[in-house]
Amino acid sequence: MSILMVGSVALDDVRTPFGEVKDALGGSCSYASISASHFSDVAIVGVIGDDFPRRRLDLFRRHDIDLSGLQRIKGGRTFHWSGYYEHDMNQAHTLNTALNVFAEFRPAIPEKLRESEFVLLGNIDPDLQLEVLEQVRNPRLVLIDTMNFWISGKREQLLRVLRKSHIVLLNEAEARQLCDTVNLQVAAQRLLKLGLKRVIIKKGEHGCLMFSGDTYFAAPAFPLEMIKDPTGAGDTFAGGFIGYLASARSLNEMTFRKAVIAGTAMASFTVEEFSLKRLASLKSREIGERCDRLRNLSSFPKITIKSCQHGTH
Amino acid sequence: MSILMVGSVALDDVRTPFGEVKDALGGSCSYASISASHFSDVAIVGVIGDDFPRRRLDLFRRHDIDLSGLQRIKGGRTFHWSGYYEHDMNQAHTLNTALNVFAEFRPAIPEKLRESEFVLLGNIDPDLQLEVLEQVRNPRLVLIDTMNFWISGKREQLLRVLRKSHIVLLNEAEARQLCDTVNLQVAAQRLLKLGLKRVIIKKGEHGCLMFSGDTYFAAPAFPLEMIKDPTGAGDTFAGGFIGYLASARSLNEMTFRKAVIAGTAMASFTVEEFSLKRLASLKSREIGERCDRLRNLSSFPKITIKSCQHGTH
Repeated sequence: MSILMVGSVALDDVRTPFGEVKDALGGSCSYASISASHFSDVAIVGVIGDDFPRRRLDLFRRHDIDLSGLQRIKGGRTFHWSGYYEHDMNQAHTLNTALNVFAEFRPAIPEKLRESEFVLLGNIDPDLQLEVLEQVRNPRLVLIDTMNFWISGKREQLLRVLRKSHIVLLNEAEARQLCDTVNLQVAAQRLLKLGLKRVIIKKGEHGCLMFSGDTYFAAPAFPLEMIKDPTGAGDTFAGGFIGYLASARSLNEMTFRKAVIAGTAMASFTVEEFSLKRLASLKSREIGERCDRLRNLSSFPKITIKSCQHGTH
Repeated sequence: MSILMVGSVALDDVRTPFGEVKDALGGSCSYASISASHFSDVAIVGVIGDDFPRRRLDLFRRHDIDLSGLQRIKGGRTFHWSGYYEHDMNQAHTLNTALNVFAEFRPAIPEKLRESEFVLLGNIDPDLQLEVLEQVRNPRLVLIDTMNFWISGKREQLLRVLRKSHIVLLNEAEARQLCDTVNLQVAAQRLLKLGLKRVIIKKGEHGCLMFSGDTYFAAPAFPLEMIKDPTGAGDTFAGGFIGYLASARSLNEMTFRKAVIAGTAMASFTVEEFSLKRLASLKSREIGERCDRLRNLSSFPKITIKSCQHGTH
């Protein structure tokens, strides 16, 4: 199955305690599409300026990513994010966000992509996410990502997108903010009431949680002794998750659990290097090994409790 | 197998957003022993004042807990903790700690208990933990719990206890503080270098991690929509963990994993009510059901990654 993704393609300046890069490939669509391409066919819809180096598009082409929906604006400059991380890698500090061509971006879905069965609405303005949903015909699965900026600034529009989507991806803080509760179990139940089929709450080094109306999955994180650059981890997860789903024969609880693990494995590679460096050179064998390790490090046998000899029987 | 536990038996005043109790049974030894008694025989060594209500000892007796090492000090007052929790239940706020008889406590292990194969050194002064280790003869497994107060105040003595123990239990913040790193993977490796066989890092609502020289286990937390009182959760975990181990025929990686899950299940009951109320009425059937649920909510099938069609092959 083919996946349609809408989001940003960017050039990033990133500094972490382990080094820095300038004008490196970034943006939600870049991470998510390269990640998903390891499992399925992918098409992206986004915008770049004519400052975007043409050789950077080679990476997408090498991964057979459909770029027919990627607008290139003459005289425009590409979306540029600069930021840094300190020793606590969970917290990104933004130095500057230059929207540039992204400020005027309106998603135009090429005709042949409107039949896409799998749609990833990257973290963009909820009004634009709604515009995407108006153009696609009858998607089987819509996955939406968002962020604190839209939760506080465009709450009503965001709720409208959520009501039209199947699965939402949030991190812990976003889930608490959106649902006004510290308890993630309660937050997830409130989100499911909007009509979402599933809710995925990402917890960084603590793994992630997936909720549906009648199932609950706690997924482990992949243990890493060093994280060089956490940028794009969430987008890589989203790409691996939807990529795995689009490659699966049927969608049931176990397919979704395996997709969460595939996304977790993919994200663990991204953070080992700056930008998309590690993701770009990744081999399927390595992905398989990491999924196996995630299974080994979280599995345990059935436990038999002998009838209690003491106290209340 | 029989377990020897050394720690506090206390009377607690606790307030949470869901209610409050005064002079309720508390202390690390109380939670840990009742928890462990669901799996194995337990003896406790500790101290109470003569203000300690005799009927409170009935709970221990009903669970066949050996009280021969519990000193009762004439004219003394029992260790008394008062504190509260706000909406973030991960953070206990102490209002007052009255050590009372605990201030002069010196653990005296009755002769017949010195042969104990399983020893839990509850969170007490490392000097006292060392005194316990000098009295026991040849324990098969020593589990040590501690806290930030001893990590900063008695670091050298604590390191000495750790070098003589097999397994240490820490929460995230304690592991980071003791090992001077934010990365828990790195912290665990540093602790293993002291000679410990295993390191367990508790992460509250995020479950816990268990490390050995060549294995790693990420255990899920039990999902709860409401936590009434988190007091004693860590001690209950320790009790369930060592209780399960002492009841097992052999100690291998899978036994340790099952013990972590048993501890997790026990702790999830404790926090559902104030003090030991829930733990005291617990049935083995309920423990088994919760262990089964922990297995169901964290398991997933093996993942097959098809050979990647795109990019680097």
